[in-house]
Amino acid sequence: MRVLILGGGFGGVYTAVHLEKLLKREIAAGEVELSLVSREDYMVFQPMLPEVISGSIGIVETITPIRRMCPRTSLYTRVIEKIDVEKKRVWAGAGFGARGCDLGFDHLVIALGNVTSFAGQPGLAEHALPFKYLGDALNLRNRIIHTLEEADIETDPAIRRALLTFVVAGGGFSGVEAVAELNDFVSRVAKNFRSLKRQEMRVVLLHAGGLILPELPKSLAEFAQRLLARRGVELRLNTRLAGATAEGALLDNGERIPTRTLVSTVPSAPNPLVTTLPCKMERGRIVVNGHLEVPDRPGVWAIGDCAWIRDAKTGEQCPPTAQHAIREARCAAENIAASIRGGTKKTFSFQALGKLGSLGHRSAVAEVLGVKVSGFLAWFLWRTIYLMKLPGLDRKLRVATDWTLDLILPPDIVQLKTEKSIGIRREHFEPGEIIVREGDRGDWLYIIADGEVEVVRRVEDGHQILGCLGRGECFGEIALISDTPRTATVRSKTGVNVLAVDRDAFHTLFASLPPLRGFFEQLIEERVGGAPTPGADR
Amino acid sequence: MRVLILGGGFGGVYTAVHLEKLLKREIAAGEVELSLVSREDYMVFQPMLPEVISGSIGIVETITPIRRMCPRTSLYTRVIEKIDVEKKRVWAGAGFGARGCDLGFDHLVIALGNVTSFAGQPGLAEHALPFKYLGDALNLRNRIIHTLEEADIETDPAIRRALLTFVVAGGGFSGVEAVAELNDFVSRVAKNFRSLKRQEMRVVLLHAGGLILPELPKSLAEFAQRLLARRGVELRLNTRLAGATAEGALLDNGERIPTRTLVSTVPSAPNPLVTTLPCKMERGRIVVNGHLEVPDRPGVWAIGDCAWIRDAKTGEQCPPTAQHAIREARCAAENIAASIRGGTKKTFSFQALGKLGSLGHRSAVAEVLGVKVSGFLAWFLWRTIYLMKLPGLDRKLRVATDWTLDLILPPDIVQLKTEKSIGIRREHFEPGEIIVREGDRGDWLYIIADGEVEVVRRVEDGHQILGCLGRGECFGEIALISDTPRTATVRSKTGVNVLAVDRDAFHTLFASLPPLRGFFEQLIEERVGGAPTPGADR
Repeated sequence: MRVLILGGGFGGVYTAVHLEKLLKREIAAGEVELSLVSREDYMVFQPMLPEVISGSIGIVETITPIRRMCPRTSLYTRVIEKIDVEKKRVWAGAGFGARGCDLGFDHLVIALGNVTSFAGQPGLAEHALPFKYLGDALNLRNRIIHTLEEADIETDPAIRRALLTFVVAGGGFSGVEAVAELNDFVSRVAKNFRSLKRQEMRVVLLHAGGLILPELPKSLAEFAQRLLARRGVELRLNTRLAGATAEGALLDNGERIPTRTLVSTVPSAPNPLVTTLPCKMERGRIVVNGHLEVPDRPGVWAIGDCAWIRDAKTGEQCPPTAQHAIREARCAAENIAASIRGGTKKTFSFQALGKLGSLGHRSAVAEVLGVKVSGFLAWFLWRTIYLMKLPGLDRKLRVATDWTLDLILPPDIVQLKTEKSIGIRREHFEPGEIIVREGDRGDWLYIIADGEVEVVRRVEDGHQILGCLGRGECFGEIALISDTPRTATVRSKTGVNVLAVDRDAFHTLFASLPPLRGFFEQLIEERVGGAPTPGADR
Repeated sequence: MRVLILGGGFGGVYTAVHLEKLLKREIAAGEVELSLVSREDYMVFQPMLPEVISGSIGIVETITPIRRMCPRTSLYTRVIEKIDVEKKRVWAGAGFGARGCDLGFDHLVIALGNVTSFAGQPGLAEHALPFKYLGDALNLRNRIIHTLEEADIETDPAIRRALLTFVVAGGGFSGVEAVAELNDFVSRVAKNFRSLKRQEMRVVLLHAGGLILPELPKSLAEFAQRLLARRGVELRLNTRLAGATAEGALLDNGERIPTRTLVSTVPSAPNPLVTTLPCKMERGRIVVNGHLEVPDRPGVWAIGDCAWIRDAKTGEQCPPTAQHAIREARCAAENIAASIRGGTKKTFSFQALGKLGSLGHRSAVAEVLGVKVSGFLAWFLWRTIYLMKLPGLDRKLRVATDWTLDLILPPDIVQLKTEKSIGIRREHFEPGEIIVREGDRGDWLYIIADGEVEVVRRVEDGHQILGCLGRGECFGEIALISDTPRTATVRSKTGVNVLAVDRDAFHTLFASLPPLRGFFEQLIEERVGGAPTPGADR
């Protein structure tokens, strides 16, 4: 009997944990085989993710190796490419080399959660930082330190101001916790930068509603709002993020906040792997019956954020929280064990025990079993409860140690970059922005994916428009063959999406492809006349 | 008076530290301006880098923020692009956006060290892992965990064996410390992988000489060699690494060791920024006088691994070690202060205090002030000395805590990937290797940068050669438009370098470029006939 679990979040991992206990005998006898497919080999303990920003706990302490939590489950650290519930097969992508794998199942537990999606908001995919995975938290931390370092040596006051502006969009739990940690972090490290002062920094929280933390009772939300404001966070209520460019955040009222650090915690969309399944859906989530099984698909189960579950007692729809996912996992595991061994299946019902939100620096808001708590006591509660819930004794000990050290040691101020990424990036510009400035140096080539730009050159008595470029055309190619300053300014006429490619990437990628090489040789020939060809030095 | 320091290693950072002390008054009065340009905002404490592999100390503990070490120095976290000693200017690359910066100087300290270089060894740049920077240590750690995870679920015994083979090339200090930590780590975590046994794992150390650790006295080197062998490291003496492919290490005797993890600690080459300077060079290093100043270039100083320094007392050439770099930094700082304030310059002389090499798991070898020590005592000495030398009280405390926790807690077994890299990679194949296998799935397109491949298809009674492809041609393009299995096998005829591009990267990069798009549309048309074009779904 093969039980296959998809997803390495709370739902998937806890299903495996419970199945290992319930089916211990069968697994030992080789009658039941448990497998779990997850993109990462660890489970992220989401509540502690914001603390990675300020480094008050170490990077690996927020995550737990799945292998240690469920040692009798075969773990496939792979990306799932296709799920076929009719043929009962799942296709996972390649690990090393080009060999994918094809997994059969008798029982399938779908616990794939949802995904980050910036669809429909121009520029967000390119310029906003999501905040969901561990990698996101690390990237954000690197970005904050990077902007502070750049601001410290920047001489242009407008650019400096943009570098010192941090915008977080979304006033729910995750946005509030992120903005609180971000604000604490920049406040604490400001003194390590020679020319920066805390007062120059601007930390902004955008929230679509009139009061942040809509999940909480009004009095707690108001407490949180007052506290953040007192600590210097600028609250922009009834304001939505409409888009982003490399240089700023666009609000729905047309206002533009110049910033280089825009965090968006709002967007999550149904997982595309899930929405394409031939099952009944409700808002992109799989509808299951009271036993958490997919109707008409015996052996297929869905739990967590990707499942549409009604509470058996209240009839209400279950919210997408970790508390629920963990209980759903237990229920699904028990029902799978009952299916395998024979027995009665249970129906799912659970009422949340409470809600906790950290506000950074020894303050929090909490509602536990109906009691409202705020301030230091709530913060103490927050730390105690989450430390208890953190899986693994070793992690508990490490986090407790980190928290202790954090009381006496200064925060880290280093950027950790592990992979050297290839120099290619997507960028978005709103109409009228300068993409390349005459006289600047730079070694990026730009290819227009959408929109139009105009090329302008300074002349004695003003500016002269040299021409327009559109989709599929490129500019800046002269940077690939020499390091002379830019010979003209290029400005967006409409909203523009470009691909920027640096010199190394150009040579690596393009120079070995004859058609492209020919194209660029000709282009450079036309524009600069007789300059050496970009591939000629290879 | 502007003093500009290039390089964020021991030499550069300690020069700034000493100058801040020596010129305290002048800096406070604004008469002297100190700046330092470094690619990273931290200094790596190299001796502890191998411990990042096993995770016995945390990731950020091996590094110290430069900003905290020299708070009165302006730090530019930038890549240096050009040094002009005649015009007294240094050009640093862009931070955010496309604005580089142009720094003038009165005194210049060049402390740029050397660089990793795999030039001349085929396949090493693509497939060997360097071991010099913090990012390298993290990548290696991720790689080890990744191979163990893949081996755990691999069914093909040959691939499994290759995944469980770890090869380190270079038997000097850094190779020995790396192999020792690697061996300890795989031994400790083996039990966390369901189907793996320690005995199946093979850890190999390649060394060109007859005895490892040539820097140490023979008796210590022999001790180290015996200890490593007893702990299961396979020592291959008098053996050099000749090349690498995705599937293995090539030795100079023609032998091939199938492996997916090849670490090369050997290659370091002069920094190209340094070698192009109009100064007298010796083996790619800048020749300086007894004061560490470049002859005929007053105000230009060079120290550390990029300088060619003779000891004033012994007349011997100073070795490229951290001990020396730190003393050279002090001497250079004192001489710069003397130049600025007036005073006598000193000549440089220093004899190393000793040598220490960790052998992992509570053993080491050391020669301190002429006394040889090995085993546990040397290990204790190693930890004590390096803990004392680690800059910053906060780091000392954190490392001491980590070492304590490491005695009682299991090591971490998670892969930490921060950046999502674009799906493009370079690969190298030796003649006769299979690049794409008929029937496999895969979504990579391959572009041949050098060499020739043949395309083979299975027929009833064996194989049929369909044709040959060469430089600039590509294969696997069908994977970009459908997920059908590979229709043929592609095998290297000669040594082949390819660029592999995945589906997402293809669409991101290529689809918006009309000439390339046309090329692929035509190619796919020819090869598969009337299939949808790769850009059609965009």
